[in-house]
Amino acid sequence: MKRRNILKAGIAGAAAGALAAPAIVGAAESFRWRMTTSFPPGLPFYQSGPGSAEWIVKSIDEATNGRLKIKLFAAGELVKWNGGFDAVTGGTVEMNSAVAYYWSGKVPALQYFGTVPFGMTFQGQNAWYYHGGGLELWNEIYNDFGVIGMPCGNSGVQMTGWFKKPVNSLADFKGLKMRIPGLGGKIYKSIGVNVKSLGGGDIFPALERGVIDAAEWVGPVQDRRLGLHKAAKYYYNTGWHEPSTTTELLINKKAFNALPKDIQAIVRHVAAAANIIAHTSAEALNGDALEDLVKNHGVKVLSLSTEVIEELRKKTAEILEAGAAADPVTRKVHDSFMSFKTKHDKWANTSSRQFAVRVRGG
Amino acid sequence: MKRRNILKAGIAGAAAGALAAPAIVGAAESFRWRMTTSFPPGLPFYQSGPGSAEWIVKSIDEATNGRLKIKLFAAGELVKWNGGFDAVTGGTVEMNSAVAYYWSGKVPALQYFGTVPFGMTFQGQNAWYYHGGGLELWNEIYNDFGVIGMPCGNSGVQMTGWFKKPVNSLADFKGLKMRIPGLGGKIYKSIGVNVKSLGGGDIFPALERGVIDAAEWVGPVQDRRLGLHKAAKYYYNTGWHEPSTTTELLINKKAFNALPKDIQAIVRHVAAAANIIAHTSAEALNGDALEDLVKNHGVKVLSLSTEVIEELRKKTAEILEAGAAADPVTRKVHDSFMSFKTKHDKWANTSSRQFAVRVRGG
Repeated sequence: MKRRNILKAGIAGAAAGALAAPAIVGAAESFRWRMTTSFPPGLPFYQSGPGSAEWIVKSIDEATNGRLKIKLFAAGELVKWNGGFDAVTGGTVEMNSAVAYYWSGKVPALQYFGTVPFGMTFQGQNAWYYHGGGLELWNEIYNDFGVIGMPCGNSGVQMTGWFKKPVNSLADFKGLKMRIPGLGGKIYKSIGVNVKSLGGGDIFPALERGVIDAAEWVGPVQDRRLGLHKAAKYYYNTGWHEPSTTTELLINKKAFNALPKDIQAIVRHVAAAANIIAHTSAEALNGDALEDLVKNHGVKVLSLSTEVIEELRKKTAEILEAGAAADPVTRKVHDSFMSFKTKHDKWANTSSRQFAVRVRGG
Repeated sequence: MKRRNILKAGIAGAAAGALAAPAIVGAAESFRWRMTTSFPPGLPFYQSGPGSAEWIVKSIDEATNGRLKIKLFAAGELVKWNGGFDAVTGGTVEMNSAVAYYWSGKVPALQYFGTVPFGMTFQGQNAWYYHGGGLELWNEIYNDFGVIGMPCGNSGVQMTGWFKKPVNSLADFKGLKMRIPGLGGKIYKSIGVNVKSLGGGDIFPALERGVIDAAEWVGPVQDRRLGLHKAAKYYYNTGWHEPSTTTELLINKKAFNALPKDIQAIVRHVAAAANIIAHTSAEALNGDALEDLVKNHGVKVLSLSTEVIEELRKKTAEILEAGAAADPVTRKVHDSFMSFKTKHDKWANTSSRQFAVRVRGG
């Protein structure tokens, strides 16, 4: 859409003081959008707080001086938690926030724009999006659906999860009843885990009553909110299954293209700002939450054994390769991701890993 | 400054299609600013390319629809590379991009808003800025100077530097002639290094001719540009001295306060977007550059020995503590930084370190 109103307003410019040049009035249109999310009302990081869906809506309002006002609906308020993709592609709403792997039932390759088991962490994953062709591939896929996707947050390395008893060996995983969805679940299943699918609100009661032996959710902040530490005390790290889960901003393309170029730019910059603001808020909050869990709630933080990690690594490679072999789009995305990862790993191993191991210690 | 022109433009709104609500024209003023930087023309990452000063100026122009136009001057074009602080505080220009530790001669505590030896990496450093009180402290200091500071990029973990011969023990550092500025230089001096201060352009000839035995600059991309691999082959990592060097956007407060609120918001969002876009561009480019240096230029990547790292750690703690003891502002910033670091380290050691060591390997 072309801008229709370029008005000169020399008087305002002249009054604006020494720093102001003659003024040009900005684009005149204003827009009312609706945005859904996959997250419950008030959920820290995703729905509320710095970098969240609420923050994005408010930031766009401020930066556009009210020219793009977005009414926000949490999961269930307008559509179900997993209804955002259909709502945006169908034009019911203009925008949705979720994680792209929620839609991997429709397009398997979308898994790579959520997180990849044994994949890259925040810095590499985003280097791939912004500078390694990842964002282009993401939108090549979405082009057929008339939508645009971009990152707007990142959980960082998630925790492996909560276990009622320590799990030391592969044998301890055989028959273990564990709540874990998606690709992570598929991989656990391949080592004999009895994988259960449960909504967020159902995890605590199931874990507490012993219906399940273990559960994966997100990390210290979100897990504490669900009370998982009251039902299990062994909290495993390494986050092999979700090293950098990306929050997705999904936008109806027709609606986006109808925005003036300046508002389009604002939406993109706010999404990128949300990406780092949200991610670092998780980094900050998880430090506090983990300390609280360990100091005040008797939680023990443990690491998976090498035997378990290496078997999961092997199964992950097999399952990712089978997915790529079965679908040309997945093949293309997989190869782009892995080729970038190989290169980035060399840098990460020299820079951040050396720093983490030799300098930070711990 | 209050906005002077809120014009209703119903016709444009009515023409804007089903998604558009009645329109309100944005703030009418426009502004012409000048921005200096500490960087030479075309310098990747800092001056040119994604997330750089050029990118920031262009992004602000687009997102404000030309209402804030900024004329950019590289180092030496309007003021010297280290003249940006005076230019912004004095009102010669409205904006500057540099690294805050360049001004630590004026206010020692500004070191902490550049990078801290043995400090935090990208995620922790930014979590401290955005969510741990860091940004507030930064601007508490700048308030007295009538300026505002914010992060707009990050080099990530820098390389320790280039050495003509391997350095295995502390003894190898005694009398070693090394180019390294700032706090890193002060710490090397304390272990007996003969520290040299040289501008970027003087490093290669000095290293090649053997006037110096070693040199620190930034990382693979920038170092290769200077040709340092042609003068020395041993490239050490761990980046103990600069784990997350923050690029600073410095803004004249009076000029910023004269902007309408929407443009202020845009400047802040573009700076935050630049922070992640620039940082991840370094992550992406360094992977390529390091591979090239090793494969095609016979560079050997090595790690400092534990003996050397531990002595540097001890000296760093002493020197930082002495700085804090000598100055109440530094004390306040130091304590905030270290207290946040202690908490964040616990999370980083559980999440990203475990992932780096156990999952990514290398």
